[in-house]
Amino acid sequence: MSFPDRLAADAARIEAHLAAEIGRFGDLPVIRAMAYAAEGGKRLRGFLVLESARLHGVDGARAIWPACAIEALHAYSLVHDDLPCMDDDDLRRGRPTVHRKWDEATAVLAGDALQTLAFEFAAHPEVGPGEVRADLALSLARAAGAQGMVLGQALDIAAETAGRPLTLDEITALQAGKTGALIEWSAQAGARLAGADTAALSAYARALGLAFQIADDILDVEGDAATVGKAVGKDAGAGKATFVSLLGLDGAKRRAADLVTEACDALGAYGDGADCLRDAARFVISRRH
Amino acid sequence: MSFPDRLAADAARIEAHLAAEIGRFGDLPVIRAMAYAAEGGKRLRGFLVLESARLHGVDGARAIWPACAIEALHAYSLVHDDLPCMDDDDLRRGRPTVHRKWDEATAVLAGDALQTLAFEFAAHPEVGPGEVRADLALSLARAAGAQGMVLGQALDIAAETAGRPLTLDEITALQAGKTGALIEWSAQAGARLAGADTAALSAYARALGLAFQIADDILDVEGDAATVGKAVGKDAGAGKATFVSLLGLDGAKRRAADLVTEACDALGAYGDGADCLRDAARFVISRRH
Repeated sequence: MSFPDRLAADAARIEAHLAAEIGRFGDLPVIRAMAYAAEGGKRLRGFLVLESARLHGVDGARAIWPACAIEALHAYSLVHDDLPCMDDDDLRRGRPTVHRKWDEATAVLAGDALQTLAFEFAAHPEVGPGEVRADLALSLARAAGAQGMVLGQALDIAAETAGRPLTLDEITALQAGKTGALIEWSAQAGARLAGADTAALSAYARALGLAFQIADDILDVEGDAATVGKAVGKDAGAGKATFVSLLGLDGAKRRAADLVTEACDALGAYGDGADCLRDAARFVISRRH
Repeated sequence: MSFPDRLAADAARIEAHLAAEIGRFGDLPVIRAMAYAAEGGKRLRGFLVLESARLHGVDGARAIWPACAIEALHAYSLVHDDLPCMDDDDLRRGRPTVHRKWDEATAVLAGDALQTLAFEFAAHPEVGPGEVRADLALSLARAAGAQGMVLGQALDIAAETAGRPLTLDEITALQAGKTGALIEWSAQAGARLAGADTAALSAYARALGLAFQIADDILDVEGDAATVGKAVGKDAGAGKATFVSLLGLDGAKRRAADLVTEACDALGAYGDGADCLRDAARFVISRRH
């Protein structure tokens, strides 16, 4: 199956699983807001879990849980990022953000519960042996927390009050936390499920994650809001340092392409079996949203 | 050791462990806000973890992790509860709330990272076998999420727009989620660590949790802000249904006392070894803050 077909099939499976699991919780506004926030998106992280699991011969009925865990965690981070006290965004995935559609209290709580749900999924009994479930929950917490995603967000806030634009090293460190840690966890998940070594998938994912963020910065300059599904030009307008402002548009594109090559090469030991992951890396820098 | 001495010793141990673990993350404002939010408090939940572990002969070096997990989770819930869009409180444990001392973005992120940290602790390698770590993480997620604590908070928000005060059954269900689920998890933790049956500790904790909340409502009427360490009289002033408004002050005190007896009786099979937990139940309705 080609990468776009595979991504579409995986996204549909993740979408259905998330909706069914959240639907079990009833229909209070907070629950409906959780379901709404968990809808849509590219599902690249969930795909990485499912594809790395396939690469290791792990049953999809086990892998769907960590795939939904990372998508629930990603959804929580977006809901909280969009809050008025954070990025104050009205639009996400082409629809009103949760605090615009409901209110701030509902957005805070729905985000909180989506994070909790991520750990419920990671440690779910159907994932497999206790050691694997504990390993997934622990590594997800480390990727999401104060040494991973939240560290990236904290560095982002600190940058705004620093009085000077970030350097390339600083923005790379920021993005390694903010975006990279969860992408790395996603790609490692298949090896973790199989109890196998995660090194090759980590190297792949670190290059992929950085390419992904550079592509995001390029989209922020080249994209339009209708296609991208969220506000564009905000970072450049706010005078924030981005990979484009630091490397130039062409330089950023070259760097992203080099990183994709690096990501593909890291999977050498997997042979042809990893071609779908290689296609995913190429997709990341060619996407329009 | 008497209960007050035991609680003080456990609180000091939890305080030191939390401070050391959070200290590892550096000194960005978000990290300092996490440490600040994790300071102080009665540590009743952490004590329940450590004491139920002692009751089952579990080493304190293992039990300290879930004890800190529940305290980190509790701290996150307080930071987010205090936000302007939620309860809008300026004072917590006698000090400025996180969003007053820093800002809302820092409070959202610090709360988020404290929740993540709770799962890092629950699944920590030093907790023991994988099955136990996975069981603790999964049960903590279920207690904290959309069928536990967040459900209670969602019911609380729904009550405000319901146009009528809650009934006794409704407020009992609300509190079972909002406060009860985490207290139950705390008391069960010792049995989970030992791979033992959790039923007796659950029955104890359900009665204790409800008594705890009734005592909170009594304090809201009888206490003063300086002793309680947060605003008092808010619920009564806002016309919200509380156990005191529904049962009367004397009725609420009788109900709390009956629940403490029920909690103590539930531990019958543990004999004298559970006396410290019984004293904890009595403490809950006699406390002044």
